[in-house]
Amino acid sequence: MTDSLARRLTCIDCGAAHPLAYLLQCERCHGLLELTYDLDRLRRDGPAIFTGTGLWRYAPVLPIADPAHRVTLGEGGTPLLDCPRLARDLGVRRVLVKFDGSNPTGTVKDRSSATAVGAALQFGYRATSVVSSGNAGSSIAAYAARAGLRSLIFAYERASAPKLLHMAATTADLIIYKGVYDDLITLWDRLVEEKLFFDCGASRNAYKQEGKKTLAYEIAEQTAWVPPDVIVAPVAVGETFIAMLRGFREMREAGWIPRVPRMVAAQATRANAIARAFREGTAITPLKIGYTVAEGLAAGNPGKKGDWVLRLLREEKGLAGDAEDEEILDAQRRLARTEGVWAGPTGVATLAVLIRLLARRQLEPAQTICVIISETGLKTEAEVPSRVGAAFDYDSLRRLVTERLPAK
Amino acid sequence: MTDSLARRLTCIDCGAAHPLAYLLQCERCHGLLELTYDLDRLRRDGPAIFTGTGLWRYAPVLPIADPAHRVTLGEGGTPLLDCPRLARDLGVRRVLVKFDGSNPTGTVKDRSSATAVGAALQFGYRATSVVSSGNAGSSIAAYAARAGLRSLIFAYERASAPKLLHMAATTADLIIYKGVYDDLITLWDRLVEEKLFFDCGASRNAYKQEGKKTLAYEIAEQTAWVPPDVIVAPVAVGETFIAMLRGFREMREAGWIPRVPRMVAAQATRANAIARAFREGTAITPLKIGYTVAEGLAAGNPGKKGDWVLRLLREEKGLAGDAEDEEILDAQRRLARTEGVWAGPTGVATLAVLIRLLARRQLEPAQTICVIISETGLKTEAEVPSRVGAAFDYDSLRRLVTERLPAK
Repeated sequence: MTDSLARRLTCIDCGAAHPLAYLLQCERCHGLLELTYDLDRLRRDGPAIFTGTGLWRYAPVLPIADPAHRVTLGEGGTPLLDCPRLARDLGVRRVLVKFDGSNPTGTVKDRSSATAVGAALQFGYRATSVVSSGNAGSSIAAYAARAGLRSLIFAYERASAPKLLHMAATTADLIIYKGVYDDLITLWDRLVEEKLFFDCGASRNAYKQEGKKTLAYEIAEQTAWVPPDVIVAPVAVGETFIAMLRGFREMREAGWIPRVPRMVAAQATRANAIARAFREGTAITPLKIGYTVAEGLAAGNPGKKGDWVLRLLREEKGLAGDAEDEEILDAQRRLARTEGVWAGPTGVATLAVLIRLLARRQLEPAQTICVIISETGLKTEAEVPSRVGAAFDYDSLRRLVTERLPAK
Repeated sequence: MTDSLARRLTCIDCGAAHPLAYLLQCERCHGLLELTYDLDRLRRDGPAIFTGTGLWRYAPVLPIADPAHRVTLGEGGTPLLDCPRLARDLGVRRVLVKFDGSNPTGTVKDRSSATAVGAALQFGYRATSVVSSGNAGSSIAAYAARAGLRSLIFAYERASAPKLLHMAATTADLIIYKGVYDDLITLWDRLVEEKLFFDCGASRNAYKQEGKKTLAYEIAEQTAWVPPDVIVAPVAVGETFIAMLRGFREMREAGWIPRVPRMVAAQATRANAIARAFREGTAITPLKIGYTVAEGLAAGNPGKKGDWVLRLLREEKGLAGDAEDEEILDAQRRLARTEGVWAGPTGVATLAVLIRLLARRQLEPAQTICVIISETGLKTEAEVPSRVGAAFDYDSLRRLVTERLPAK
């Protein structure tokens, strides 16, 4: 097994290099940090450097040095589904669905939870914490339990029932909070500074974010190193988007792939600070937001990561879009009915954004387009269909069936 | 890619051979049929005959001949988790958790849905149907949608909300029924005989059941062809149990594994017809059953498949056990808290049975024991914890956190 090729933390603003310690910002300018790797080694060894299955197959490009710290619940290795029926429906040459709802807790968050909790072990922490709308909380709690660590999970009182139940089952320390996320996170960040627990939030921890980079490596490998032309990724504060883009850049620099796919940042219209700034060519104005069905995308103030997303979009000639809640719910049903993939609103917002961008001719349909579906539909709390059942005898059953069957 | 090595259907009662047609029972004696393969070829070629990932990696030992019929949502390839903390907790040498909740619709059913819908394509059907408590219905609907087939899904009116929602999203033809499952299935079986749709039920279709055999092949491969000493598998009518055991027998005959693991049939006490008959050394007496939290195990009359399970248990010196609902819910929480794996009651009944068998010294703890966890916890409909949230200021937040943290 190859060691981790992570070599340092680099400031994304001033470029200052830092050792591989538990640092949440640049010591010189307070900018965000990202991990940098020995790409020469990647170039020299090629993809044969990867062994095993799942997320830790990509351990050489992840920052967890000791295999004993590589905590796993079997995350990663999720399906990349060719969807000809959906493609025809959308009038696109080829549509690929990357279904990350198949992860252990049903979301893409498991990728970053694996590296977050791995890093907590690496830096000797015994407790983790996160403030969550639901998905991150249940994922961090699960990985912390798997590693034998405590997890203090702060969950919003309006989190969906399946998510609350999942969190309560997995951690002994679930704390339900009332009030605005942004206010709580400000207080919580002070405790992070005091190092009372390991930071498993999305805003600053480079080690945590890194796990999501494996999405890019997986997609590249699943397409035999010729990745799709376009990838539509969900953006709340931007972890998945940033991590994927950097994964593709690493592979391009290593000479593994011919080009970086065009990255599309997908948001909910009700939390579209980044998409709006991109369209208007301005800086991000934080939004006061209400409820969106895409709960995991409900970030009104994406902070420094949002600025980073915007910079990457402009550097790489990316694209950003958003979709209304009704469009998201429509896309959810459409994906289930045409391809059998049941995703949650948070997970399927990308498809809704794709549909809108195609309708507005902002994307060229003669391409291969991959949508990241980041969440299973099984966490969806929605009205269930009528439970009024019918009793049948043979005749009524036969009549019902023959009426519904397609003509031979 | 190697072709399917399926050669015929064989009657489990009289041994009569039948061609690979769509047959649901022996034409001579009405016994159940099972698929038989060219095992000489397996012996000669060895495991290198398998290529690719997921369920269809095992296509040579599955009965779907044409690759175009091998419908997939990315099922199979689920994690086999070494659980040292749980093992210590249970006083067992080694515990492996096979987590089939990572399948696309969150259950082991996806394995059999892939081969069921594949067989529907193979035999030219355009509609499928199943009568379900929830998991099978959403899984068959998803795979039928993926294949472009219709699916008539009969769901019990008391199915859990997440399962109903999932089914309603995935099929246009969800029919909610009232009354007893066993009564409806009798009528429905007559429509199967009329060939109005393809039989996606668990009671007779050998092609459907076959998908679950991949669990055995995966576990064998994941343990480098030295499978665990004991495997605890859930049993409603017995598909998973029967299919896994036959997979292990095939591998033993092919000389790939030294021995067949000891198979334990796990049931809910409230639906324990098979476990009871095994203990008492009698034939199965069908039970009138009520509700059990292990919804997917709620079969009071397992029919001919139940007899088959009992025969296999006696032939292979297996073991059967059951667990009360409270024990199942306790095992659910225990698995989540000790290893981070969130499973539904249907999925975790195996662990509850294992705990009981260990307590009664019916299993030797100095062994490697694998439990099949067949369902994600995300489909669980249960009371959510209190949603009464607290508001925090810095001092109250800090106090709460420091009180909960482990001592350094």
